[in-house]
Amino acid sequence: MRQRFKPWAKEKLLDNPGVVSLEPESMKGKWSSFFGNDNPIHIEVGTGKGQFIKGMGKQNPSINYLGMELYDSIIITALDRILEDGTSNVKLIRADATHILDYFETGEIDRVYLNFSDPWPKKKHAKRRLTHESFLERYETILKKQGEIHFKTDNQGLFEYSLHSMSKYGMIFQDVSLDLHKSGMDNVMTEYEEKFSEKGFRIYRMEAQFRS
Amino acid sequence: MRQRFKPWAKEKLLDNPGVVSLEPESMKGKWSSFFGNDNPIHIEVGTGKGQFIKGMGKQNPSINYLGMELYDSIIITALDRILEDGTSNVKLIRADATHILDYFETGEIDRVYLNFSDPWPKKKHAKRRLTHESFLERYETILKKQGEIHFKTDNQGLFEYSLHSMSKYGMIFQDVSLDLHKSGMDNVMTEYEEKFSEKGFRIYRMEAQFRS
Repeated sequence: MRQRFKPWAKEKLLDNPGVVSLEPESMKGKWSSFFGNDNPIHIEVGTGKGQFIKGMGKQNPSINYLGMELYDSIIITALDRILEDGTSNVKLIRADATHILDYFETGEIDRVYLNFSDPWPKKKHAKRRLTHESFLERYETILKKQGEIHFKTDNQGLFEYSLHSMSKYGMIFQDVSLDLHKSGMDNVMTEYEEKFSEKGFRIYRMEAQFRS
Repeated sequence: MRQRFKPWAKEKLLDNPGVVSLEPESMKGKWSSFFGNDNPIHIEVGTGKGQFIKGMGKQNPSINYLGMELYDSIIITALDRILEDGTSNVKLIRADATHILDYFETGEIDRVYLNFSDPWPKKKHAKRRLTHESFLERYETILKKQGEIHFKTDNQGLFEYSLHSMSKYGMIFQDVSLDLHKSGMDNVMTEYEEKFSEKGFRIYRMEAQFRS
C-alpha cells in the first residue's frame, strides 16, 4: 500500500490509547481488558486502512476485532474511521506481525484474518509471506485449539503457495472459494478488494483450520 | 462422456487380452507380469478414450501406464489407439474404480491420475466423487508409501471440494496450479481438456501426496 509521510499521524495515534495500542507487548494476555469484555478476539494481520475490520465489527458486535498494521501513515486512516463510527469492538495495534508472539498469550486469539497480504513473489522471499510455515507456527501458538485462519487474496501465486504451505503444516481447508465474488457468499470487502475486483480480477478465499 | 452402443466392442476387447484386462481381480499383485517388467505402474482412473495415457506412455517409456475405464463403448477407442501405436507400456482395465481394492495389492501402484472426473455436483452424491474420503482410503492402500495423486479438472466446485477432502485426510499439496494452461507447465492433455480449454475454461491441477 502506498504510504505518504504524515507527520501529524504519530501524535493522533498517541492521543487515542483507548483505540490504538502502540506498545502491544504490554498488553500480552490482557487484551480482553482493552475491550472491557470477554468476547472472542479476531485479529487481522495487515489491516491497512481498516475497511474490512470496521465492516466486520459492525456486522458482528459480539466479536472483538483487532487490526494490526505496521505503518503510522496507513493505520491513521483506520483510526479515523473507527473514531467516526464510535464502534467499541474494533481496535488497532500499530506493530510488526513478525513479533506477534510478543503481543499475544498462547491461545488468547480466536481467529486470524489475512487479507491481500504482500505476495513476495520471488522464491528467495518466501519466508516473508504471511502463510510461510514460520508464521503458521506463530498463529497456531496464539490461537485457541483448532483455530482458523481466514485468508483471501487476488494473487494466484500466493494462494497456490499457501495451499502447499498450509496443507504441509497439516491444516484442513474447511472452505475454499476459487472465485469468491461469484460464490454468493456473504463478504466484507477490503479497499484493495473493491478496487481490484471491479477490474475483473478473481478473488481466492479459504478457511484453514489447525488440526490440533 | 457420451456413450454409443457398439455391439462389436466386447468382441474386440476379448480379442486383445495382452492389452486390455477384463478380469482385473485375477491380476491382483501380478500387474508387473502384465507388462513384462518391473517398472513403476501409474494408473489413470477414468481413462476415457485414452489420449492422456497414450501421450504419457510415449513421453515416459520407463513407466507402465494402466488406464481404467468402466464402459466397453468408450474403452474401445482407447484400445484402438494403443493398438495403432503399438506402445507396450500402456494398457487398459475395463473395470469399476469402486472395487479398486480387488484389483491391486497393497503398495502395488506408484501413482494415481484423476483427470476430469465426474463432478457429481449434488451434495447427496458427494460419496461418488473420486476424491471422496472413501476413495482416498483405497488409493492410499494400493499406492506405495507417500504416494501421489495427480488431479486435474475444469470443474471449480470439484476442485474446491477436493482441496477440502484431501487436506482433511492429511494429504499435502506439493504443487497446485489454478490456471494450468497459463502456468507454462509441461502437460499432456485429455480429449475433454483440449475441447474445454479451447473455449477459455480454466484448468485446475494439483499434486497431492499421502503423508505416510
